[in-house]
Amino acid sequence: MAKEKKLVEAITPMDKDFAQWYTDVVTKAELISYSNVRGCMIIRPRGYAIWENIQKQLDARFKETGVDNVYLPMLIPESLLQKEKDHVEGFAPEVAWVTHGGEEKLSERLCIRPTSETLFCDHVKDIVHSYRDLPVVYNQWCSVLRWEKTTRPFLRSSEFLWQEGHTFHATAEEAKERTEQMLNVYADFCENVLAIPLVKGKKTDKEKFAGAEATYTIEALMHDCKALQSGTSHNFGNGFAKAFGIEYTNKENKLSPVYETSWGMSTRIIGAIIMVHGDDSGLVLPPRIAPVQTMIIPIQQKKEGVLDKAFEIRDMLKSNFSVKVDDSDKSPGWKFSEQEIQGIPTRIEIGPKDIEKGQAVIVRRDTREKIVTPIEKIEETLAEVLETMQNDMYNKAKAHLEKNTHIAHNWEEFNDILENQQGFIRAMWCGERECEEAIKDENGATTRCIPFVQAKHSDVCVHCGKPAKCEVYFGKAY
Amino acid sequence: MAKEKKLVEAITPMDKDFAQWYTDVVTKAELISYSNVRGCMIIRPRGYAIWENIQKQLDARFKETGVDNVYLPMLIPESLLQKEKDHVEGFAPEVAWVTHGGEEKLSERLCIRPTSETLFCDHVKDIVHSYRDLPVVYNQWCSVLRWEKTTRPFLRSSEFLWQEGHTFHATAEEAKERTEQMLNVYADFCENVLAIPLVKGKKTDKEKFAGAEATYTIEALMHDCKALQSGTSHNFGNGFAKAFGIEYTNKENKLSPVYETSWGMSTRIIGAIIMVHGDDSGLVLPPRIAPVQTMIIPIQQKKEGVLDKAFEIRDMLKSNFSVKVDDSDKSPGWKFSEQEIQGIPTRIEIGPKDIEKGQAVIVRRDTREKIVTPIEKIEETLAEVLETMQNDMYNKAKAHLEKNTHIAHNWEEFNDILENQQGFIRAMWCGERECEEAIKDENGATTRCIPFVQAKHSDVCVHCGKPAKCEVYFGKAY
Repeated sequence: MAKEKKLVEAITPMDKDFAQWYTDVVTKAELISYSNVRGCMIIRPRGYAIWENIQKQLDARFKETGVDNVYLPMLIPESLLQKEKDHVEGFAPEVAWVTHGGEEKLSERLCIRPTSETLFCDHVKDIVHSYRDLPVVYNQWCSVLRWEKTTRPFLRSSEFLWQEGHTFHATAEEAKERTEQMLNVYADFCENVLAIPLVKGKKTDKEKFAGAEATYTIEALMHDCKALQSGTSHNFGNGFAKAFGIEYTNKENKLSPVYETSWGMSTRIIGAIIMVHGDDSGLVLPPRIAPVQTMIIPIQQKKEGVLDKAFEIRDMLKSNFSVKVDDSDKSPGWKFSEQEIQGIPTRIEIGPKDIEKGQAVIVRRDTREKIVTPIEKIEETLAEVLETMQNDMYNKAKAHLEKNTHIAHNWEEFNDILENQQGFIRAMWCGERECEEAIKDENGATTRCIPFVQAKHSDVCVHCGKPAKCEVYFGKAY
Repeated sequence: MAKEKKLVEAITPMDKDFAQWYTDVVTKAELISYSNVRGCMIIRPRGYAIWENIQKQLDARFKETGVDNVYLPMLIPESLLQKEKDHVEGFAPEVAWVTHGGEEKLSERLCIRPTSETLFCDHVKDIVHSYRDLPVVYNQWCSVLRWEKTTRPFLRSSEFLWQEGHTFHATAEEAKERTEQMLNVYADFCENVLAIPLVKGKKTDKEKFAGAEATYTIEALMHDCKALQSGTSHNFGNGFAKAFGIEYTNKENKLSPVYETSWGMSTRIIGAIIMVHGDDSGLVLPPRIAPVQTMIIPIQQKKEGVLDKAFEIRDMLKSNFSVKVDDSDKSPGWKFSEQEIQGIPTRIEIGPKDIEKGQAVIVRRDTREKIVTPIEKIEETLAEVLETMQNDMYNKAKAHLEKNTHIAHNWEEFNDILENQQGFIRAMWCGERECEEAIKDENGATTRCIPFVQAKHSDVCVHCGKPAKCEVYFGKAY
């Protein structure tokens, strides 16, 4: 009963209140539940199944590039966190401190990891001695905690799940290559699996990771034209290595510092999936990441043969697709709504009339298009429908990204776009941090990235008029 | 160089110093590394790959029984931990307390989860309203933390990885069935995948989980004849449900409490694999859990055609086995030692003479038996060798368990066995907690379990002489 009540409360339309639409989708699709722990969410089965699929596919891609998974402690002694100056400044204000173990007060405070660069450096110092021990290419799947003031499910929560890769190399070139390689792994995964088009580039010094020499990023554009940083890859050079004293004997028998990278993608990406593909009926999951790809919904299921046929179709499909039958005692209309709210990419409707004709009806979640298929060809048809849907979803999101990417030649245009059209603003920039901060103060736009593929729109900075150093993507962001 | 130095230091023989042997194996097989965080270990690639295989296979078994994975917060507010009296008494002394978030002192302390019954209850109270919402069959893979005084890699560390299942049912019968079902999942996994024979039974009231009505356990016997609790499944009845006020409307429209279970297996089981199967040359991994099942080691690899043949064999095997080629510039003897220390179940030796004869040599890690096989039949032969090895390892461990399980008819026999033979001691017991504690105080033996299959050895308790209530397995334990 309670469940039925919840479902009929309509999802707030996006146009009316985007933030409320988002909250309605994450809760009504049962992806998360709020917890009584400040800033921490509960990831429910439907949400966690998406994360499991992300893990599985991303992990396979990591392993293809030679990544080994490991597990390091969740606690970091305060003295260890403090070893790299920029890093501690960036993270110390937002960590949770453990001060007592059982009844005993600790002699040194321990923080719950906000990220694990310091622990990885401390470990690698012990295991790397010679060039033969390099490269070290590690990753860990874990949860981290940052004491956030305002939180939103998936987008910003105190605790979140992620993977953090940490690699150590003999040369600066190799570290740079790995940083780029992993950004490309993320980009490829987002575009091909999540159907999310991206802008790839480098963060400005202001926006880069605490302690990094360079941070690369992939930026996606949400329905509301705000940007979401979706994955980052950092090149540390040998800064951390020097702070932690990690040295190795090179082939010439000389001591050299190592070069380090780190890269991460988190449950935040689920927020991107929701805000890039969702609609006013709920979640829309790209077929390649959907935990259930098709829900078979019997029509007049009490009539003889209907349920049997539904399960027969399930058995035809189950080796190649993730498929379920909804044989609950709810009405078909109710089941349709649930399948739509939950973002299951397709449903298969099968009733007595269909059975008579030897057919079934596949309905796409994104377009509601109905595809009638002979039952004996259902495997083939469903494969085609899912493939087409995956591509269509990407193309639709790509069109949205392109439509909402504007060039600003001057400050007036910049403000005009920000006020009336939003989205990404491509503009020239002087490269000065003060100017970047002034822009943010004036209208809330931040630098999203310095795109790898540069264009030139003017000779001077869009804001201060000084000579331009590079093109930048600006935007409002989550 | 440093690595080579490490390898030649021999592993301490088991008979000389079992504890040192264990430490040597976990460090020299590079399963773990010690960290600078009190009581926490670093799980290195070779150790973590074992855990990944455990996760993968156990998770598939869970899902077959209808389990959904979820993720709940890692922090528990103090007030929530205190809701169930026995539970807080059991865990409060061994938790780590977070008292500060960033610069701010928290109004309420939060502990890092030592286990998550309280969080699951708090969540389930929100999502279960009607009998239609039951059962709830959840599991989470995560790390937990217990502030341990003395720690040992895998066996007892402050932080460890595990899975914790939490289920909620409409009836006491259903909860009991689920408790038993999950114990059987663990037992089947240990016996069939890890080749570890077990004793299954119920914990005494003294040894059961804090807050449980009944705890079921699987107990394994290590090489040194000490027992290791390898997995537990708890039936909470409706105790927690009452403490947390979880009620549902049953089919007769009446409010009823729910019945709860929880069950867990942790990285501790890796300690069991080591101590059940390892030998003086290092780790021995059962084929079904080994991250690498066979290492191809070329002999005279610089001779033309040898490496090519090694990779050709790798390609023949890679679709059905986890296989690697060691083409490093170390000597074959050195590679053999590494493969043995690391417990890789088989190696395949292939040299110029073998190639001439169209054959390769498979060497079993456990028995060192050499099996010569025609190369064109290598897939078939390797499959047979691994299957035989898996069974032999189980049978060997089973023989060890049986040989070291003794019946004590009286207190003299009991002490005699404990002093001279060790292992499991089957004896009658009065069922009194005081008597159980007295036994432990006298000679360090604890009750391991009340076996499901009961035998009768006497009418009276082996220790106090009062009328016997049941047969118990006693032993010294990790």
